[in-house]
Amino acid sequence: MSEETLRAAFAGARVTIAGGLGFIGSNLARRLGDLGAEVLVVDALLPGLGGNRHNLDGAHGRLAVEVADLREADAIPFVEGREYLFNLAGQTSHQGSMDAPLDDLDLNCRVALRLLEACRKAAPEAFVVFASTRQVYGKPHYLPVDEQHPLAPVDVNGIHKLAAEAYHALYREVYGVKSAVLRLTNTYGPRMRIKDARQTFLGAWLRAVLEGRPFEVWEGEQLRDLTYVDDAVEALLLAAAVTEAEGGAFNIGGGRRIALKRLADALVAANGGGDYVVEPFPDARKRIDIGDYHADDRLFRRITGWKPRVTLNDGLTRTLEYYRDHLAAYL
Amino acid sequence: MSEETLRAAFAGARVTIAGGLGFIGSNLARRLGDLGAEVLVVDALLPGLGGNRHNLDGAHGRLAVEVADLREADAIPFVEGREYLFNLAGQTSHQGSMDAPLDDLDLNCRVALRLLEACRKAAPEAFVVFASTRQVYGKPHYLPVDEQHPLAPVDVNGIHKLAAEAYHALYREVYGVKSAVLRLTNTYGPRMRIKDARQTFLGAWLRAVLEGRPFEVWEGEQLRDLTYVDDAVEALLLAAAVTEAEGGAFNIGGGRRIALKRLADALVAANGGGDYVVEPFPDARKRIDIGDYHADDRLFRRITGWKPRVTLNDGLTRTLEYYRDHLAAYL
Repeated sequence: MSEETLRAAFAGARVTIAGGLGFIGSNLARRLGDLGAEVLVVDALLPGLGGNRHNLDGAHGRLAVEVADLREADAIPFVEGREYLFNLAGQTSHQGSMDAPLDDLDLNCRVALRLLEACRKAAPEAFVVFASTRQVYGKPHYLPVDEQHPLAPVDVNGIHKLAAEAYHALYREVYGVKSAVLRLTNTYGPRMRIKDARQTFLGAWLRAVLEGRPFEVWEGEQLRDLTYVDDAVEALLLAAAVTEAEGGAFNIGGGRRIALKRLADALVAANGGGDYVVEPFPDARKRIDIGDYHADDRLFRRITGWKPRVTLNDGLTRTLEYYRDHLAAYL
Repeated sequence: MSEETLRAAFAGARVTIAGGLGFIGSNLARRLGDLGAEVLVVDALLPGLGGNRHNLDGAHGRLAVEVADLREADAIPFVEGREYLFNLAGQTSHQGSMDAPLDDLDLNCRVALRLLEACRKAAPEAFVVFASTRQVYGKPHYLPVDEQHPLAPVDVNGIHKLAAEAYHALYREVYGVKSAVLRLTNTYGPRMRIKDARQTFLGAWLRAVLEGRPFEVWEGEQLRDLTYVDDAVEALLLAAAVTEAEGGAFNIGGGRRIALKRLADALVAANGGGDYVVEPFPDARKRIDIGDYHADDRLFRRITGWKPRVTLNDGLTRTLEYYRDHLAAYL
């Protein structure tokens, strides 16, 4: 879809982004600002999650920011009169969801349900895009994983994201609240949390190479596909602009799959140096590990025309450049 | 399984029943008391749910009652040192879950997760039996519904019960907390809530015939199978005593399926009089209705030897007798 078409869809549109100071949310807010949308960012800025005020530094366009915790705050003022709601709020760490399952319940289920309730009551015409995760599939039975794959999450986060997906289907069916769900896999790029591995292992890797320390690669042969954040943002916009008649849940991948050790090599090469050690999986992680994953995202591509545009090498290079300039804001 | 075998399993056993002042929970507590178990009943006695202090009137054996709200109260003291935990707590009304979805989230997901967390930390050897619902299947694609049927709940309650089932599978897999999940369908009998239809439509029907008022049958041709509460209690006990090696989720039915209008006729006959009117489904109910349901419970029967023993006519007669003697306690 051309830039002009996206501009036609979003210029002047009233958009709310829950979790809009976070990694993907802030990149989406910046892009929507550039497209001429009127963007309301809501974020709780909870410690341990992805929200970071610096993520909107230097952003253009009409962006307003409200710091509010949607687990408790009245959600209606944030959705009333809005045409689009992107829900990027939530907890994404798999191990984090096992360590604090009740927090994960609130951050993922409660917030999603409260936002949908607010839409039902105060913005029944709004289109909702919900960021879900490949984790709803659990351990893949086959690769690449398409949307017909059984849903059998193997961690608390996957259970809660699946329940939140089901809310969206239910509210569409019963109340006519339109929505699309994107099942994202490892997304990376500028503005992700790199303080630790709570937003994918890549965060911890990036920090280590930037600080000149070796990073840990667990096991190394596991396959993943990665999505550069600009491509994920494009998918979110297209989901809102194009899938209105379809709704439903869609996989988003990133093109070629890669073994973690090869990814580590690519990161070191993009950085012009660095070092890593290969370690066995820690026990706690092994128990919730899903093995190899690779998304079959042909359904979404067919419906929307989306495809990933940023190669892994370009994406890693851009990411490292961003953090070299802004490292202090992310430590 | 013979009475002697159940007695061998539960005599002297330390058992906790969450929701033990409710309909099924209190019948289970009474039976366990008779079997010689040491029973700790925990119940929040929340308005609108099934808890009723009268439900343990005249019960025999070693029964202790704690009124506590497991959404917030520390669950560890209730599970520490216990061999069995039966989780019968929760909200069961489908329409109730649509009217107050966040309450349903807390009452079903939060409580189940907190109990499992408490078991993981303080009672890793306890065996957990969780009362789930046929509602996890959504609209049946075929009848009778077996455990292979797709899981696609069509109301908030079904979404939350499915998430709670998934917690049990996860805690078994990751932490070794043993459990069985029973997917109950319409259960009826003494000690159910008859103030309104929040514990199946039959509650409202029973109250009306007992008070000499006509009751409403919606549509009338819909098929259901009903489980008399003594049979449901037997299934819960067998799940704990027999399925330890198997775990997993099992359907529980009640034998013959019956159209609602025929059920209404049977109730009127058992009562020796009464009247009903057939009405179309109210709109809000129609939107979350699942159509016909009939459980295929052969898997559970094969593993445990369970079968329903109380015929519909006997069950209705016993139920009416109970309420004639105790009506004031249920209004």
